[in-house]
Amino acid sequence: GTAPAIVHAQSTIRWRLASSFPKSLDTIFGAAELFAKRVGEMSGGKFQISVHAGGELMPAFGVVDGVQNGTVEMAHTAPYYFVGKDITFALGTAIPFGLNSRQMTAWMYQGNGLTLMREFYANYNIISFPGGNTGAQMGGWFRKPITKLADLKGLRLRTVGVTGQVMERLGVVVQALPGAEIYQALEKGTIDAAEWVGPYDDLKLGFNKVAPHYAYPAWWEGGPQLDFFINTKAFGGLPAEYKAMIQAAASEAHVDMQARYDARNPNALRQLVAGGTKLFRFPKDTMDEAFKQAMALYAEISAKNPAWKKVYTDFSKFRSEQNLWYRFAEAGFDSYMQSQKV
Amino acid sequence: GTAPAIVHAQSTIRWRLASSFPKSLDTIFGAAELFAKRVGEMSGGKFQISVHAGGELMPAFGVVDGVQNGTVEMAHTAPYYFVGKDITFALGTAIPFGLNSRQMTAWMYQGNGLTLMREFYANYNIISFPGGNTGAQMGGWFRKPITKLADLKGLRLRTVGVTGQVMERLGVVVQALPGAEIYQALEKGTIDAAEWVGPYDDLKLGFNKVAPHYAYPAWWEGGPQLDFFINTKAFGGLPAEYKAMIQAAASEAHVDMQARYDARNPNALRQLVAGGTKLFRFPKDTMDEAFKQAMALYAEISAKNPAWKKVYTDFSKFRSEQNLWYRFAEAGFDSYMQSQKV
Repeated sequence: GTAPAIVHAQSTIRWRLASSFPKSLDTIFGAAELFAKRVGEMSGGKFQISVHAGGELMPAFGVVDGVQNGTVEMAHTAPYYFVGKDITFALGTAIPFGLNSRQMTAWMYQGNGLTLMREFYANYNIISFPGGNTGAQMGGWFRKPITKLADLKGLRLRTVGVTGQVMERLGVVVQALPGAEIYQALEKGTIDAAEWVGPYDDLKLGFNKVAPHYAYPAWWEGGPQLDFFINTKAFGGLPAEYKAMIQAAASEAHVDMQARYDARNPNALRQLVAGGTKLFRFPKDTMDEAFKQAMALYAEISAKNPAWKKVYTDFSKFRSEQNLWYRFAEAGFDSYMQSQKV
Repeated sequence: GTAPAIVHAQSTIRWRLASSFPKSLDTIFGAAELFAKRVGEMSGGKFQISVHAGGELMPAFGVVDGVQNGTVEMAHTAPYYFVGKDITFALGTAIPFGLNSRQMTAWMYQGNGLTLMREFYANYNIISFPGGNTGAQMGGWFRKPITKLADLKGLRLRTVGVTGQVMERLGVVVQALPGAEIYQALEKGTIDAAEWVGPYDDLKLGFNKVAPHYAYPAWWEGGPQLDFFINTKAFGGLPAEYKAMIQAAASEAHVDMQARYDARNPNALRQLVAGGTKLFRFPKDTMDEAFKQAMALYAEISAKNPAWKKVYTDFSKFRSEQNLWYRFAEAGFDSYMQSQKV
């Protein structure tokens, strides 16, 4: 071809990215791979980022420490894994009755979300870039369907984080198992139910074989966001060109990951239902009590955690505005299309 | 700072981008500006793309010709403006009862959408990159509300393209006015109604002052996509680094434009309603007949246009799968959130 080569005087920069996810979650892990690949292409191979699965360089949930102390230059993770450090991390991913995927992206890109979360993450020497979203998740796998709020009393459910706190207020016995242990716990009956992601990921783990009832929606994960976390000093040391490449490549990974889920979930759901999985919607009394308890919890956290309060105040105002608007054009279009045989 | 500079041996490449839009549509025009800015930053100023508003270099609707014959290297436009060349262009933006914004992006990024549309655009020496989406639009401004299908008979409505063809089957008298002429036509009463975009853009043009009733949803634009159109020879002549930069910067512009609309529409809708605008939902009989006529039209086009048939067959299969899946987690979450006072 006629394309001239670009000569780079700069020596090669090599970074390591620690993912919190296994390679088997190809939708999520693939977003980090796409990010690294694109940065490599744009820099003519002079900015190389190697992508490492969870556990390879450090534990999956050790990546914030790893970025904070500079063991690795960057990570790909779900901020809400780190609510043990500060519950404010949850607002970077999802909280019960939060934002849907598009709303979360709008809050980040064009609302105050990214600015506020970066201000918070700066305490951990981190600068963040949105790095994908799963979309609204399914409500998990149940050995028996939930038909009323009282069915949750004493139910042993695998879930984590803020969701666990709301569930406990509903009488649920929360078990925070890692993903790899869910199947066996459901099979043995040491738990009664487990929530994970959605049809595409859940089918791979085979939960349908050990729990026949599949709930919707995950009112706790309407649009959970992943993030690229970068050590602020490492980022600050980059040439302006490479900073801009990170911004653009992260955006591409962000939009591509949601598209991966959207394109793969329908067929997986069809397979599940064909294989005997029964879908049920969380009853209204259950949703209503969960909503009430979630709002009470957020008020309590706001009263004692100024970082949370600052971000949540903006988040909740944005959520209110979004739902006002979505009622009309978006919901009007979607609900009609979903009612048609197309 | 410690950041080393990157030395570029290559001489500067200068491209011109012809937009089909005025600068006043800051949400859309801004996406092209963001794209060019990011490419400039990533290349250290060595790949410069100047962005020109509609009419500046060529007529707003002349940009496909401009890219095809190489007058400009690239354009930012809505493919459906070019249905006069071939109605298949409409599938690159939106058709009545098509995909919503996220579904359109999924079809493009992870379905067959981008591959199929690029195969079609290649006939015009064009390679396309998704370059933004407005989200579901509002159904336009009416001097009197539509309460039943029969109200459309003889109604003089400003709209364009495939929507116009469906509207004509409903008895509407279609007037394809440019955006700048809509206000005066509504004010003078030479038209009875006009559809444009949504609250943020419509408020700027002041349609609320001359037509009090605002319909939803725009069943003809559930998720209209904009595209960057690039001359295939110009693109082919770029170094691999710059090709990758175009891919990533277009992705960022794509996701950012939707976020702009999402962040700005709620406040504009609030202002409109506070100023006296009355919202109405298109009646079910009207939606149902429009749906029926749209599907009949698509079958007729498929019978005589092989390019359309090839793309539409895939598009409609993807639409069916998406709506199956969206009924559960997405709709379950969104409908609950929209019913709450949050």
